[in-house]
Amino acid sequence: MATQHETSTPPVVAPDALQRLHDTTAVTAVLHEYCRAIDDKRFDDVAALFSDDAELTVHAGSGGTVRGRTALRQRVGKLMGGFTATSHMVSNVQVSFPAPDRAEAVSYLHAWHRFEHARPDGVLWGRYHDGLVRTDGNWKISHRTLRIIGEQDFPFAWLPATPG
Amino acid sequence: MATQHETSTPPVVAPDALQRLHDTTAVTAVLHEYCRAIDDKRFDDVAALFSDDAELTVHAGSGGTVRGRTALRQRVGKLMGGFTATSHMVSNVQVSFPAPDRAEAVSYLHAWHRFEHARPDGVLWGRYHDGLVRTDGNWKISHRTLRIIGEQDFPFAWLPATPG
Amino acid sequence: MATQHETSTPPVVAPDALQRLHDTTAVTAVLHEYCRAIDDKRFDDVAALFSDDAELTVHAGSGGTVRGRTALRQRVGKLMGGFTATSHMVSNVQVSFPAPDRAEAVSYLHAWHRFEHARPDGVLWGRYHDGLVRTDGNWKISHRTLRIIGEQDFPFAWLPATPG
Repeated sequence: MATQHETSTPPVVAPDALQRLHDTTAVTAVLHEYCRAIDDKRFDDVAALFSDDAELTVHAGSGGTVRGRTALRQRVGKLMGGFTATSHMVSNVQVSFPAPDRAEAVSYLHAWHRFEHARPDGVLWGRYHDGLVRTDGNWKISHRTLRIIGEQDFPFAWLPATPG
Repeated sequence: MATQHETSTPPVVAPDALQRLHDTTAVTAVLHEYCRAIDDKRFDDVAALFSDDAELTVHAGSGGTVRGRTALRQRVGKLMGGFTATSHMVSNVQVSFPAPDRAEAVSYLHAWHRFEHARPDGVLWGRYHDGLVRTDGNWKISHRTLRIIGEQDFPFAWLPATPG
Repeated sequence: MATQHETSTPPVVAPDALQRLHDTTAVTAVLHEYCRAIDDKRFDDVAALFSDDAELTVHAGSGGTVRGRTALRQRVGKLMGGFTATSHMVSNVQVSFPAPDRAEAVSYLHAWHRFEHARPDGVLWGRYHDGLVRTDGNWKISHRTLRIIGEQDFPFAWLPATPG
């Protein structure tokens, strides 16, 4: 533990620091609500977190990407249909703002899935790569891509994680 | 990735935005300290995070709910007595403020337990539903209920998760 | 759920509350970037998160502690060399500021490791104990110690967790 006293003056926070913190918290809240709604099988609530023309990519190949809130809601419902219980835990949330009304987020996902049919629980370790837009004061996901670092008892046509 | 430039003006943050962020951080810190104190078996420190008349519900049935800080401390000590090591990880923390001095929080719990007696590690996926009150400037937990999404090698009279 | 209405006046946030929140977020971002860079095997980026004379302790015994950014980069690269994939998830992040330009952080680590050679995945539950310094406006890790609560299929000369 350093005992040396630091003497440099701390930088004054930027004028938009409060807005940034507020927006970062709001964007993070959307990521959390996605998990809770997914695990509750409240698929209308999941869909409401996305913009009208949002794009969701959950695996590779045809059918891995859906566009538009209606198609997205159907796909999510179908994907989650085979599980009796799931827990989606996000951590390591990183948010940046390429423009005042646009955000990009990368978050870690650790997800546990119990299948309806007897088979070992499926576990995923991966990352969500999200774009969000602020519309009427609310942050909505405009595109979400799931990239997988690893899985256990859950082989699938996942998209691999990409460094950077 | 959207390349379109957004032109709408970002909303000005609410006058109480800083207070809200400050309180959200303080409430979240209480949830984190609970985990650390529990895993350290510092049960007096666990109890100090609760209000005098707090209510803790950790499982269904008689004995699943305790009231008052003293009873709570005893129960927590007893519950944790059979483990040689535990790790309580919270994520997806959602905090709201029904009143300036009251908070509600829902957080995800992923908890790992190593038993004193030889048996497989017990793992839980669930959610804490918390109410907190601000007393003398400090946030204290007034009621906490653990609701379980799933478990591995840890069957018990858990309360099930509830959607919403 | 308490129905009683609280009447006490909320405390006014401290004058440095915004600076604190800003710094807390910045420190947490460093912890997140460490995970992402480690899991991406971007070891130069990992090293860039540390101060020039940083100290990293990842296990007990000789060789468990390295000093200086160059030695640290080599060690990290060597440690991570035997895995085809890892996921480092931090949660329960606690940050305090013993001085304006110094921070201390304790965070929970849940880390999953897939080995190059066929053997079960190694899992860790532990805590990072970090010291950080602000240099030229950026927070850098000056010392990091990993302390382990438990492991699965990953026995090693870990440092045990310490209460407090």
